Amino acid sequence: MQTFPPSDPDFERRVRASFARQAMMSLLQATVARVAPGQVDNALPVRPELGQQHGFVHAGVVTAIVDTACGYAALTLMPAGTGVLTVEFKVNLLAPAGGSALNARARVLKPGRSIFVCAGDVYALDDRGETLVATMLATMMVVRDRPALVD
Amino acid sequence: MQTFPPSDPDFERRVRASFARQAMMSLLQATVARVAPGQVDNALPVRPELGQQHGFVHAGVVTAIVDTACGYAALTLMPAGTGVLTVEFKVNLLAPAGGSALNARARVLKPGRSIFVCAGDVYALDDRGETLVATMLATMMVVRDRPALVD
Amino acid sequence: MQTFPPSDPDFERRVRASFARQAMMSLLQATVARVAPGQVDNALPVRPELGQQHGFVHAGVVTAIVDTACGYAALTLMPAGTGVLTVEFKVNLLAPAGGSALNARARVLKPGRSIFVCAGDVYALDDRGETLVATMLATMMVVRDRPALVD
Amino acid sequence: MQTFPPSDPDFERRVRASFARQAMMSLLQATVARVAPGQVDNALPVRPELGQQHGFVHAGVVTAIVDTACGYAALTLMPAGTGVLTVEFKVNLLAPAGGSALNARARVLKPGRSIFVCAGDVYALDDRGETLVATMLATMMVVRDRPALVD
Repeated sequence: MQTFPPSDPDFERRVRASFARQAMMSLLQATVARVAPGQVDNALPVRPELGQQHGFVHAGVVTAIVDTACGYAALTLMPAGTGVLTVEFKVNLLAPAGGSALNARARVLKPGRSIFVCAGDVYALDDRGETLVATMLATMMVVRDRPALVD
Repeated sequence: MQTFPPSDPDFERRVRASFARQAMMSLLQATVARVAPGQVDNALPVRPELGQQHGFVHAGVVTAIVDTACGYAALTLMPAGTGVLTVEFKVNLLAPAGGSALNARARVLKPGRSIFVCAGDVYALDDRGETLVATMLATMMVVRDRPALVD
Repeated sequence: MQTFPPSDPDFERRVRASFARQAMMSLLQATVARVAPGQVDNALPVRPELGQQHGFVHAGVVTAIVDTACGYAALTLMPAGTGVLTVEFKVNLLAPAGGSALNARARVLKPGRSIFVCAGDVYALDDRGETLVATMLATMMVVRDRPALVD
Repeated sequence: MQTFPPSDPDFERRVRASFARQAMMSLLQATVARVAPGQVDNALPVRPELGQQHGFVHAGVVTAIVDTACGYAALTLMPAGTGVLTVEFKVNLLAPAGGSALNARARVLKPGRSIFVCAGDVYALDDRGETLVATMLATMMVVRDRPALVD
């Protein structure tokens, strides 16, 4: 995995503060598990309230945590005073998302002046270990000159 | 928009019953707004609990309702005794998702024996009308011979 | 389909001149069939040289003509002195691409200051009419201040 | 990278024979550089004939070689007597594709009974080494009981 230098030394505090402002992450009970330059992991306890019709975690929930991880992975490399917006993502669902917890691990594939490309994987944790349940390929945008959207 | 005949006349009841089993749709307070052959609409009241860091509805929530609509649009055309699984989707986020409610409208582009391709749009409703905030292109799979996954 | 006003009245000439510089379009024998604000169609005669292993037109060729159409649909709405780059696209292949010709029809879903979102469909033409064989959802970027990339 | 056992010991011969039937790969002058269980690499000499309007290799060409690599990566793990079809793919273009050659490297992320998920990267080679220029996330389908589509 390629590594990239952060341009704002305060990147971790900035990611954690922005995450804390996300009401949806609270509703899901998701947390930030790790912040490093170009990499962010989120964790989520699996609960029945998050289920789809067969009892597995809903694809929208899986997407929520890995999109958030991808966006913040990009933010770790963005300059101070900017914000991050998701332009688009694609998610492949590889296995039913169950077990006791989900871990979303995101990384920057390519930083840019205005566009970042990120990838993220989601693993379901149970007694036997981890299973890859989803993978995301996402495009993030650096937001400048819009004070309401700074992270 | 192309139309397709349902293969199970009981399709609407089946979609509504499956939707009712989705705990996540209850958590989001999402509802089924419309069921027709090859088409399903979902509706969602916008609440602060669903917000991302800038107060707009989280991309994962937008995805959850339009993925659900796409999946059930496909299910309306699937034979009795089958179920639907999301293989993958791509979402472009076109504008911040705010206002008072979101409407997700999905349609089947191409039904198949094992694979369905669906498209869905999400509109945000406010005083001035509707704004297109996201669009999805998704691949759904017909599930056969797996009793636990029948819808 | 929503329509958008062009910002450069010379958009059609600009699209056709840029297309003419694409060596790959010549190799494929693709042509511009239509240029309108926010909309571009490309056409391609089907030839055995473009086939995959079963004799249908290769997915990369289908992608080439609809990506080109999406990019130029975006360019019709971009200011003079700019250029267009593809950020990313997703393509669903809906049916084998055969017949005598392919027609790719692209439209802008959402123009922006730096990002355009476009959709395109590819139809195969034979004696019985047209068949939808592929659909693309794409993200395009406006290129400014890079003289080598002006269209 | 996870590895998977092939189910047909004759997988390499099958991939190379199918690739040889692709007229489009001949037109592009693309070759198979490597075949291993769950992994296929393709190579392409860069020529002016493959260019887009600014002289870089067209996105459709980049897509053609990495889609082909992803499909054959999946085929290496499929049973004898089957064929592979691309259901869909997403491609992010990360840098202009230039240099003297492109190398597309694909791998299976998740094999399945009917659906395979694959990822592929495309690198451009020049005097200074390799640059990642594109990444694909793709869904492939196993084709059974259709003699015309066996690979």
